[in-house]
Amino acid sequence: MFTIHPTARLRPSPFYQAALAEGMTSASLYNRMILPTSFGDPEAEYWRIINGVSQWDVGCERQVQLKGPDAGRLAQILSPRDLSKCKAGQGKYVPLCNHRGTVINDPIMLKLADDLYWFSIADSDVWIWARAIAAERGLDVEVSEPDVSPMAIQGPKGEDVVASVVGDWVRDIRYFWFKETEIEGIPVAVQRSGWSKQGGFEIYLRDGSQGTALWNIFKEAGKPYGIGPGAPTTAERTESGLVSVGGDTDEETNPFEIRLGKYVDLDVDDDVIGIKALRRIHQEGPKRHQLGLILEGEEPAPLKFSWEEIRSGGKTVGEMTNCVWSPRLKANIGYGLVSVDCVPGDKVEVMRDSGASSAKLVELPFL
Amino acid sequence: MFTIHPTARLRPSPFYQAALAEGMTSASLYNRMILPTSFGDPEAEYWRIINGVSQWDVGCERQVQLKGPDAGRLAQILSPRDLSKCKAGQGKYVPLCNHRGTVINDPIMLKLADDLYWFSIADSDVWIWARAIAAERGLDVEVSEPDVSPMAIQGPKGEDVVASVVGDWVRDIRYFWFKETEIEGIPVAVQRSGWSKQGGFEIYLRDGSQGTALWNIFKEAGKPYGIGPGAPTTAERTESGLVSVGGDTDEETNPFEIRLGKYVDLDVDDDVIGIKALRRIHQEGPKRHQLGLILEGEEPAPLKFSWEEIRSGGKTVGEMTNCVWSPRLKANIGYGLVSVDCVPGDKVEVMRDSGASSAKLVELPFL
Repeated sequence: MFTIHPTARLRPSPFYQAALAEGMTSASLYNRMILPTSFGDPEAEYWRIINGVSQWDVGCERQVQLKGPDAGRLAQILSPRDLSKCKAGQGKYVPLCNHRGTVINDPIMLKLADDLYWFSIADSDVWIWARAIAAERGLDVEVSEPDVSPMAIQGPKGEDVVASVVGDWVRDIRYFWFKETEIEGIPVAVQRSGWSKQGGFEIYLRDGSQGTALWNIFKEAGKPYGIGPGAPTTAERTESGLVSVGGDTDEETNPFEIRLGKYVDLDVDDDVIGIKALRRIHQEGPKRHQLGLILEGEEPAPLKFSWEEIRSGGKTVGEMTNCVWSPRLKANIGYGLVSVDCVPGDKVEVMRDSGASSAKLVELPFL
Repeated sequence: MFTIHPTARLRPSPFYQAALAEGMTSASLYNRMILPTSFGDPEAEYWRIINGVSQWDVGCERQVQLKGPDAGRLAQILSPRDLSKCKAGQGKYVPLCNHRGTVINDPIMLKLADDLYWFSIADSDVWIWARAIAAERGLDVEVSEPDVSPMAIQGPKGEDVVASVVGDWVRDIRYFWFKETEIEGIPVAVQRSGWSKQGGFEIYLRDGSQGTALWNIFKEAGKPYGIGPGAPTTAERTESGLVSVGGDTDEETNPFEIRLGKYVDLDVDDDVIGIKALRRIHQEGPKRHQLGLILEGEEPAPLKFSWEEIRSGGKTVGEMTNCVWSPRLKANIGYGLVSVDCVPGDKVEVMRDSGASSAKLVELPFL
């Protein structure tokens, strides 16, 4: 816990002033932008996502835009998931891997047109990578960061709120599909998406000067539903089995280890980055896999910065990559990136600062 | 100003516990690591760098290691500066550019051996870029992040402190040259370097478990010289004309615009990334250049997150990219990235939140 001061190297999102007005009390940095993480009442914020509707400044989910005749080709070269049947207006969750098959990001890819794609990224510099690949391969495509910033409306009442603003047509949008529209003259794309498993939408603001206006439209529309400010929470995302690339992954983590194998199509073209390594890893079988951990103990004991060693029978079998108190399971839960010899039901020990803690391995997701 | 909580996506440096023990009060994130920025007395910390000796946790200056038969070739491909005469034990300041000639990082490159290089980087994901280039070009080189974390000893008395720890031989080290050695059994490289112009060294710790031990050795040795904790300061680096890539630069900034043209050798091989774009930019002449700004006013008025517009004769001529109170100049100073039509001596207006502020353009550095 420490204080951060502004510098030009760090950027606020278009919703930053709105987040300050809502009483933001803590934040993180993500793609060198400020990601609000709490508004002073973490418990209320958690239950609002589970039972109601929550409004998030996730402008830090930046877009890597591919535009031009070779945009589709570059999108496929970057993605080990087959995009050939993807239609304009459709999105797909895509793990991006480097040439060795290591996951370096896990964006939602949005196809706006045959020559226009966005990758709505997690926290790493995908632009410099995508530009390097495009240039090395001589592709006719411009890679840029457009003026596009997502705001999330999450929770079981999220659909009602979004429908009340843009119309009932959003109720028919399928998962990760989206539609471009305007809200009181503000250009947006509305996508069924969001970094929770409680339902909801992301509203991609396409005019950074309109952040506060857009925020307030949804804040007002959400009042009958009890909307309030919130943020992606470690508790909900862990209960739901969502992956945080860079948090749950290291320099060697491939998609098969972290339950993302279903988003890899091994028969895509050979020119897709990492596909040869991924075929080899798949054939040999991954060495590790990601399982849930339920720890003994009645008091919240979150993981801090570093992964914690997991032992079984006195031997190191892997590492705990996150740990958080689950309000619904009433236990500390986390993910283990462990040897494939470990299976759900096994008892293990986590070597914590406070000493060894007993834990049980379980299937993910928890809920 | 806001609070950050630990997660596994963010990492402390090996000196983090030492920084906490020193009373760290604020920090930033840099390469997803915690960079302490103050210990509660910014004025004392500033003057300690100017007049005495200051100890910094700059473990966030991560190393991109190139190792293998093609390490030297990759280092040159990534660097638009001629490295052909660089010797083992020598370091060089190298702006890294993308294929369009935009600066994406400005590391110190250290040549440890013909087949082993480190790039001690600023804040961007150079690893994924370097790995992509190496793979696309089929080079036989491993790109990795080694267990290497710099600690800086900065200020006019820094050399005395370092000499008292490792011996008087460090007094003969030339700028950016370094030597590998051990300090009480802890493996380090000692380089004349550091992100200030007040002199000093960076001690590259090569065993992350020894951060507190190494910190305390220098803290103890520095007592006769009045050593205390500190950090890179915006005031000193601005007075000294140092560049902060990502802060002072945007998606279009080339080295010639920000006084780094002398680190570009236009006659390096054609396979160097960005060199063709840099030759073209150089021939056409850059459109902007970086000048100093001295603003009117007697009260500190730092830049916040966003660049501020600069006008001359009612027209936009550029942007102010940083602004800070200079204790030595007793004025708010900053950098302008302005049209080449603007020259030192010109009066301009900076469009600040508080209103238009008169300013004078000057040559850099200020001091």
